[in-house]
Amino acid sequence: MKKTFAVVLSGCGVFDGSEIGEAMMTLLAIEEAGCAYQMFAPDKKQMHVVNHLTGQPMAEDRNVLTESARIARGNVKDLKTYDPAAFDGLLFPGGFGAGKNLSTFAVDGASMTVDADVEAAIRKTMAAGKPIGAMCIAPVILGRLIPGVKVTVGHDKGTDEALKAMGACPVDVFGPEVVYDEAHNVYTTPCYMLTDATLGVVAACCRNLMAEILAR
Amino acid sequence: MKKTFAVVLSGCGVFDGSEIGEAMMTLLAIEEAGCAYQMFAPDKKQMHVVNHLTGQPMAEDRNVLTESARIARGNVKDLKTYDPAAFDGLLFPGGFGAGKNLSTFAVDGASMTVDADVEAAIRKTMAAGKPIGAMCIAPVILGRLIPGVKVTVGHDKGTDEALKAMGACPVDVFGPEVVYDEAHNVYTTPCYMLTDATLGVVAACCRNLMAEILAR
Repeated sequence: MKKTFAVVLSGCGVFDGSEIGEAMMTLLAIEEAGCAYQMFAPDKKQMHVVNHLTGQPMAEDRNVLTESARIARGNVKDLKTYDPAAFDGLLFPGGFGAGKNLSTFAVDGASMTVDADVEAAIRKTMAAGKPIGAMCIAPVILGRLIPGVKVTVGHDKGTDEALKAMGACPVDVFGPEVVYDEAHNVYTTPCYMLTDATLGVVAACCRNLMAEILAR
Repeated sequence: MKKTFAVVLSGCGVFDGSEIGEAMMTLLAIEEAGCAYQMFAPDKKQMHVVNHLTGQPMAEDRNVLTESARIARGNVKDLKTYDPAAFDGLLFPGGFGAGKNLSTFAVDGASMTVDADVEAAIRKTMAAGKPIGAMCIAPVILGRLIPGVKVTVGHDKGTDEALKAMGACPVDVFGPEVVYDEAHNVYTTPCYMLTDATLGVVAACCRNLMAEILAR
């Protein structure tokens, strides 16, 4: 039996949803490691719709699950239906969607709240003793929910401070490295939180994250 | 000096724009080959907006260039500004956007027309003696514009017939192969036109296409 990973999307596009390169490099890394995947997303309205050409907000509404289906070629499920018994780990690519739709970090910083379906998915996965991986800015969600968790967001001072304020332990990295928190079975890697990261660096982050998870 | 390739997007999502995996694997293949890229897209309204969860049309308008910017993290230019002198080749990932926004193949079949900016970009690139690559369904655009061009769309009988009706020469392939038309300096590879293609197969198609282009 192939190991299968659940990948949680947050829309489609770095400024209001999942970072598309991170999502795709996560899927490629899973396949290259000989594993399978199923995508999930919360069925809710996006916090924002951003014109990615101008960076300005657009006066329209989009749904997180519906837009995530663009990355998934239609094959994405409501996060409410996620059951860790069917999976070997839970992965969160980054993008502002992780801080706008999966949590409110992008607007509330350290006083952020986490989407109820996302919180339930994380707590059930931990209770089942299965690993959780998070890329880019998504580790702030784990920082909010897991007291004392050790995570990386690259070496961004502002985000490090927010993580400390939430009681988490940020670890600075400067390349495509993976920070492993053995006590909580949590793996994080910086992807586009690294200054001047290219798509190839993001791919390396995702491959390294999968290799670390599968090594244990 | 790094070789630099122009990549033409057609929106963001397989059913009404660029196939996101093909776009991303094209960019990754370019970077892994030691080259650089710049993305372009036509500045026009999309033919359709499709709900990728249900496959049904949505009653809203989206712009091809604006939605392409989601894949490009904002760094995409109006195709009208494309100048082949600044590039070493022109690449077209697939997705229904190639048959809806770059051409009308998805609705008109062999009697399709090609977007004026797309046609100008292709003719200028050919006049400059530089290579053109196309993935998935995008080779139909070359079939329409270049009499007798040899291209592959995998082994899809209906599309092969349409290509023949337009005067092109379809070549069937059953894996991540590249068909090279030496007379026209055109490279094509099937990506998701292959039955049951995975993201890894798409990545192999894109890597093979870049290797073939750079070998000459």
